[in-house]
Amino acid sequence: MPRILFLHGPNLQALGTREPGVYGRVTLDEVDTSVASLARELGCEVEFLESAHEGVLIDALYQARERCDGVVINPGGLTHTSVALRDAIAGAGLPTVEVHVTNPSAREPFRHTSLVAGVALGTVAGFGAEGYRLALRGLLARLGADGARG
Amino acid sequence: MPRILFLHGPNLQALGTREPGVYGRVTLDEVDTSVASLARELGCEVEFLESAHEGVLIDALYQARERCDGVVINPGGLTHTSVALRDAIAGAGLPTVEVHVTNPSAREPFRHTSLVAGVALGTVAGFGAEGYRLALRGLLARLGADGARG
Amino acid sequence: MPRILFLHGPNLQALGTREPGVYGRVTLDEVDTSVASLARELGCEVEFLESAHEGVLIDALYQARERCDGVVINPGGLTHTSVALRDAIAGAGLPTVEVHVTNPSAREPFRHTSLVAGVALGTVAGFGAEGYRLALRGLLARLGADGARG
Amino acid sequence: MPRILFLHGPNLQALGTREPGVYGRVTLDEVDTSVASLARELGCEVEFLESAHEGVLIDALYQARERCDGVVINPGGLTHTSVALRDAIAGAGLPTVEVHVTNPSAREPFRHTSLVAGVALGTVAGFGAEGYRLALRGLLARLGADGARG
Amino acid sequence: MPRILFLHGPNLQALGTREPGVYGRVTLDEVDTSVASLARELGCEVEFLESAHEGVLIDALYQARERCDGVVINPGGLTHTSVALRDAIAGAGLPTVEVHVTNPSAREPFRHTSLVAGVALGTVAGFGAEGYRLALRGLLARLGADGARG
Amino acid sequence: MPRILFLHGPNLQALGTREPGVYGRVTLDEVDTSVASLARELGCEVEFLESAHEGVLIDALYQARERCDGVVINPGGLTHTSVALRDAIAGAGLPTVEVHVTNPSAREPFRHTSLVAGVALGTVAGFGAEGYRLALRGLLARLGADGARG
Amino acid sequence: MPRILFLHGPNLQALGTREPGVYGRVTLDEVDTSVASLARELGCEVEFLESAHEGVLIDALYQARERCDGVVINPGGLTHTSVALRDAIAGAGLPTVEVHVTNPSAREPFRHTSLVAGVALGTVAGFGAEGYRLALRGLLARLGADGARG
Amino acid sequence: MPRILFLHGPNLQALGTREPGVYGRVTLDEVDTSVASLARELGCEVEFLESAHEGVLIDALYQARERCDGVVINPGGLTHTSVALRDAIAGAGLPTVEVHVTNPSAREPFRHTSLVAGVALGTVAGFGAEGYRLALRGLLARLGADGARG
Amino acid sequence: MPRILFLHGPNLQALGTREPGVYGRVTLDEVDTSVASLARELGCEVEFLESAHEGVLIDALYQARERCDGVVINPGGLTHTSVALRDAIAGAGLPTVEVHVTNPSAREPFRHTSLVAGVALGTVAGFGAEGYRLALRGLLARLGADGARG
Amino acid sequence: MPRILFLHGPNLQALGTREPGVYGRVTLDEVDTSVASLARELGCEVEFLESAHEGVLIDALYQARERCDGVVINPGGLTHTSVALRDAIAGAGLPTVEVHVTNPSAREPFRHTSLVAGVALGTVAGFGAEGYRLALRGLLARLGADGARG
Amino acid sequence: MPRILFLHGPNLQALGTREPGVYGRVTLDEVDTSVASLARELGCEVEFLESAHEGVLIDALYQARERCDGVVINPGGLTHTSVALRDAIAGAGLPTVEVHVTNPSAREPFRHTSLVAGVALGTVAGFGAEGYRLALRGLLARLGADGARG
Amino acid sequence: MPRILFLHGPNLQALGTREPGVYGRVTLDEVDTSVASLARELGCEVEFLESAHEGVLIDALYQARERCDGVVINPGGLTHTSVALRDAIAGAGLPTVEVHVTNPSAREPFRHTSLVAGVALGTVAGFGAEGYRLALRGLLARLGADGARG
Repeated sequence: MPRILFLHGPNLQALGTREPGVYGRVTLDEVDTSVASLARELGCEVEFLESAHEGVLIDALYQARERCDGVVINPGGLTHTSVALRDAIAGAGLPTVEVHVTNPSAREPFRHTSLVAGVALGTVAGFGAEGYRLALRGLLARLGADGARG
Repeated sequence: MPRILFLHGPNLQALGTREPGVYGRVTLDEVDTSVASLARELGCEVEFLESAHEGVLIDALYQARERCDGVVINPGGLTHTSVALRDAIAGAGLPTVEVHVTNPSAREPFRHTSLVAGVALGTVAGFGAEGYRLALRGLLARLGADGARG
Repeated sequence: MPRILFLHGPNLQALGTREPGVYGRVTLDEVDTSVASLARELGCEVEFLESAHEGVLIDALYQARERCDGVVINPGGLTHTSVALRDAIAGAGLPTVEVHVTNPSAREPFRHTSLVAGVALGTVAGFGAEGYRLALRGLLARLGADGARG
Repeated sequence: MPRILFLHGPNLQALGTREPGVYGRVTLDEVDTSVASLARELGCEVEFLESAHEGVLIDALYQARERCDGVVINPGGLTHTSVALRDAIAGAGLPTVEVHVTNPSAREPFRHTSLVAGVALGTVAGFGAEGYRLALRGLLARLGADGARG
Repeated sequence: MPRILFLHGPNLQALGTREPGVYGRVTLDEVDTSVASLARELGCEVEFLESAHEGVLIDALYQARERCDGVVINPGGLTHTSVALRDAIAGAGLPTVEVHVTNPSAREPFRHTSLVAGVALGTVAGFGAEGYRLALRGLLARLGADGARG
Repeated sequence: MPRILFLHGPNLQALGTREPGVYGRVTLDEVDTSVASLARELGCEVEFLESAHEGVLIDALYQARERCDGVVINPGGLTHTSVALRDAIAGAGLPTVEVHVTNPSAREPFRHTSLVAGVALGTVAGFGAEGYRLALRGLLARLGADGARG
Repeated sequence: MPRILFLHGPNLQALGTREPGVYGRVTLDEVDTSVASLARELGCEVEFLESAHEGVLIDALYQARERCDGVVINPGGLTHTSVALRDAIAGAGLPTVEVHVTNPSAREPFRHTSLVAGVALGTVAGFGAEGYRLALRGLLARLGADGARG
Repeated sequence: MPRILFLHGPNLQALGTREPGVYGRVTLDEVDTSVASLARELGCEVEFLESAHEGVLIDALYQARERCDGVVINPGGLTHTSVALRDAIAGAGLPTVEVHVTNPSAREPFRHTSLVAGVALGTVAGFGAEGYRLALRGLLARLGADGARG
Repeated sequence: MPRILFLHGPNLQALGTREPGVYGRVTLDEVDTSVASLARELGCEVEFLESAHEGVLIDALYQARERCDGVVINPGGLTHTSVALRDAIAGAGLPTVEVHVTNPSAREPFRHTSLVAGVALGTVAGFGAEGYRLALRGLLARLGADGARG
Repeated sequence: MPRILFLHGPNLQALGTREPGVYGRVTLDEVDTSVASLARELGCEVEFLESAHEGVLIDALYQARERCDGVVINPGGLTHTSVALRDAIAGAGLPTVEVHVTNPSAREPFRHTSLVAGVALGTVAGFGAEGYRLALRGLLARLGADGARG
Repeated sequence: MPRILFLHGPNLQALGTREPGVYGRVTLDEVDTSVASLARELGCEVEFLESAHEGVLIDALYQARERCDGVVINPGGLTHTSVALRDAIAGAGLPTVEVHVTNPSAREPFRHTSLVAGVALGTVAGFGAEGYRLALRGLLARLGADGARG
Repeated sequence: MPRILFLHGPNLQALGTREPGVYGRVTLDEVDTSVASLARELGCEVEFLESAHEGVLIDALYQARERCDGVVINPGGLTHTSVALRDAIAGAGLPTVEVHVTNPSAREPFRHTSLVAGVALGTVAGFGAEGYRLALRGLLARLGADGARG
């Protein structure tokens, strides 16, 4: 049974209460519950980690190598600035999907470029909290051909 | 019952046979069949239009205003160059999801900017043919709160 | 009696119904009627062509060489992206006025540059539907010194 | 009866004698006479101010708030460089039309960007001295819906 | 016997009559006649298609896959703007030579970059109508090593 | 009585001993003491947090939402690079003043752009350690109209 | 007793009535009165000059050399465009503080760069009319160590 | 006998006392005296105008048309920002030499581009006050072939 | 009988042995032999010069003025960096064709711009060693109309 | 006896197992062992710290001031993005050598600029794990002239 | 008696015969003769070197250190491209004046930046052959204060 | 026994005497002597070539193919400008290390980009004359695994 790590980067701790006009009113806990429910339905395991620390996210990516089959990550503002996070996604070598609650390309210019996209399997952006569930479906579909570890 | 228009832009006529190492071996007919199957399962109607002509895509967007509740579009190379297509998506006013078979941000620099993203509801990129099915799920989830026309 | 071709590019088919907060509520038919009325008053002939197809617009420019004395064109989104349309205006060699319903320089950065302006006689922007009538007056004033064909 | 201020920026004092191959042979006095004649025909009042001093133009814009209903301005070279003039047009809050005798977009690259356009009602460029008359017509048409002060 | 498709993009319909000081006085019919004559001499078959429509050019490239061994294309203004045409040349997979009547690198800056060159076998520019014949020679020389279909 | 959080970002731990020719000889403890003294005089509460960790600063901003009425932050080098910190300031929603000991616009080009300024209430730069006291005065003046929590 | 010159650049003549949603409702007279009151409290002399003319501001800077100990300047739109004003601040050699009523870094991109900041002692931005008082405090604090002329 | 106008732009009023380490200790009066002395020696008339007002410089250029045969101008900071001054030099049509006391290309990047150079006969930079005398010699040498007015 | 100079720039000395996967296995001697053979067939004289020294190439261009009717040059890496070589081609005034063995526009970005193209008659790129023969044909075709020196 | 701190930034924790085709198969432990061995041979002390946290690296730099004579740092992805780390290297004031396992200038464009290099003593890049030993030798050679603390 | 080296870079060998409409009809020999004449009049020695080889110019600069007091150089196209020549001027340490026959800032954009200017004493541009004499006067005036070697 | 070629580019002929504050006081002869001494110690042969001529350096690289196992090159100013030298390093195919006496990334912006780095094995910068010895050690370490020719 495949196991997927969900990584929530900086500012996602405040999802649902932070600028709800922009990011919606669904909290991160509700996202995780909804994802876990879909995971059970689709037959896979999931785990979650939230941190505003770039270093914690990088460490988590390397540690996941031994235990997980894929990653869904919303790097928040690090998307546009962190070469180190990009290197960690490439370095961990796990199939990784990038999720954004909003559509960065429709916002300020400094959000138009993603350093992460170049090493990601795919991107899901603009679907609000639903995007995490789409990312899980998409990741599992791509993993399907190769079998899973669990 | 909601009705969704799938628009396939230039070069998608050759999906499955064109550079399969890049775009995969699933043909556009197989994509449409697979989408239609999911549509039946999810309880919505779908229609498909493929054209390499920017003008045909623009006309189709305006004509869909009377009949459809949302659009899934893969604008192909027009993604990066067509202000006119962007204006048509905004002008038609239908919720629109942008799909890409590959992940443009991981390819040549001239593919990193999407003129369409600024007026799209969301983007799904990098999941191959599966991306069209994710887009349909995502679009329906967003339409769900508002009811459908059919 | 001079004869002027009015060319309406992509998305102008929806004028009056498309984003009326931006483009106003006057339809393209009403524009044409109003222009025709002014043409009669000023003693010139006019003809109209609307197309979302760059190729149709280009072909029309060359065909007009045999029959018309000037062109008024709103290239829509092609204004900012089409070298081919620019070349056709230069190639047809007819005095050509560029019209925009809104003022592109007051909108998104990708609308600030016009490829057409470099080969146009003049530009009228930001006057809504009235701009077409101003363009006709301006074009006729410039043609006046040289006489007309009709 | 509406009252319109015509502002002529730097270098327009030499219109008609300065580089006539570029700017034509109509002098600024002739422009003003021709505009005044049209104003009488259209039933509006006009006044004129010419200055090569940015500060004089800015002061004039604020003073016009009490007396005028709109402005037609040719900012000359300040078009491309003066944030202060832009701020004054926005600050005075009068509907303002930008006029250029030539078509700046067809000249040197440093003339392609207008700081003024972003706060102007509309732009008329490339029609020589006739452009001032077109600008007056266009401005009055836009003012028409709201009535005038006089 | 190899078979080569000659594709003439937008504005080439007016070759010989459009801005002859820039593009010369040889018409497109004369180009085709001259190319056909050389083709007979060199022992190959040629066919010609002229269109100002990007979509027609793209469709033609895919259809040529079944019948032709190579392509000579002058994309006109699309050279600098069409990612879709680039993708079609790559997607069709036929050896393709890019021809320009003038030397784009010696003209306006927006003509200095070719989106097509990155997927073309080679480029011939600046030789006027003679360039088409050079392109045919060059393409045949490169095809020679691999044999032809006919 | 309003309560203000002072956040000291990376490198401020060494204030007073680090490059004193550039940053002066006042230590961070002395800054805090001086600010606390002014706070008592002005009738407000202050608290201080110093960290070289972006994640710690982000977490502190969200936690301050329940307890503080405003923030004074010197983000150090993160000013120019951290979209995540910008998002946290916007997300926490507290009125926030940006302080710099030196004047970044008078230093290297990579210090000329502040990602934080776009979401800050105001900026105080170049006054050395005195800038923190000016920031407190300015922030309180702006809070005055709305009352405080304490 | 130190003497400080307050220079108000273009458009500040209209403060309080110009776009009050952006710049507030405090007039320039009220600013000057409020600053004079604080000056008396802090034991310094102040004088004021308002002009929309770059040349007047430059001349004033040089004349102040004989009589003043520091300058507080809001250069308005000249902030972003005037190398001459920058040179005058540097040339006059008086400690100079730059004030902005709004936060330019949170507005249009052409306001993000200050030519003045590179030669200013410090900057205060975004505090509305209160910023002038903060600037006076900050300037006096920096002058304190060196004594004053008066 | 030819007559040459020397125009001194913003900040040159302070030459000799302003940042002498950069601009030297020769005052503008001394420059003018030294130039006048050389003019007598070379058999030409000179006149001088100093102003920090762009508008005064522009007006002076047009007025000089009736009386002078050439211009030597040091536009100060306007060199890099004033399209209006450039247009006035071109519009007045007098042979004009640009002088700089320092070498702008060896200073800050914003001094590397001269808007004036494109319409100047020649440039002399970096020779301190001596540069004005070199400019006079150079201008007279170029005028020599064409004769003078006086 | 016309006489053509073939100039081979830096690195062409190693053609055939240098990175054969990129540049092919034909040596420079073989190129020259093949060109000479074609020259005899077409009735013209050719001479060859190979040098890695920019100065030698420049001197050769000027010396060829007395003896040759045209030039075929592959400037190697100097194509993208040498203003001096560009000036020499323009200065010598001989019709000159630029040849590249590979297609620079399909390689690294620093190869996309040619300083030479702006002064060349035409360009042939991407045909390997065959390109030199095409260049000779093209150059002779263009010279044909004007006659030759020999 | 001099004492040198070796700082290993983000992603170096995975050296030897992360993308070995790019970074090689030597682990960080092996690097440290090999460096320690050389240190003994050269007569100096070394200590090591590895962290993916920017804040930890910054804190370590300041703490090293009391105990170490120099620093060898591989900042990983922070090289290209962290102004804070740059400021810490400058602020700590220890002679610091930058090491990269690969040659960043030969990789993606976003790796071509180093914010750290401007405050580093020197750089060693592209020698794989051997680079750390070269850095130690180079640093000691430069320290030699000044003596050490230990 | 001071001794000045005149260095003539690439393409100056053809001065007077190369594009005389741009560079004039005075040959390099005539320039040298005219300069030598002025040198005698002003009491200094001159020597001349012309080469299209960057290396020859660099070597000459270093050799001149032992024998000359200053340099006048026209680097031709190397002005805009040669860091090595810039370094040699700085390295030789002789006061150096840059001369251009035309005014590069009034020509193509790639001529607007001079790598040499940043290390030159001054620049004289746009005076044709007369510029060399102005440069000699200017250089001697600057040397005068320090005495000469000869 | 491996054999290494040391190539010294433009301006290195003056090492030790040229701007010693920047480049140090060690001469090129001393560098070579020191390198030769280390080479004997490490068991390899070395040869040296110094030239300010790009062409000489390129020729030397190709000639070294037959006799050497690696190259250490300091290209001086050519580092940043010579595509031809880059192509020669790639074309010769020998493992090549780039050395700089200073750290270019800490100097002017035009020194921040190295065209050579993209084809070099590694880079050593900022260690003064010691850098050549580090480069030799590093190059030999990398060659070690593959054996040498000698």
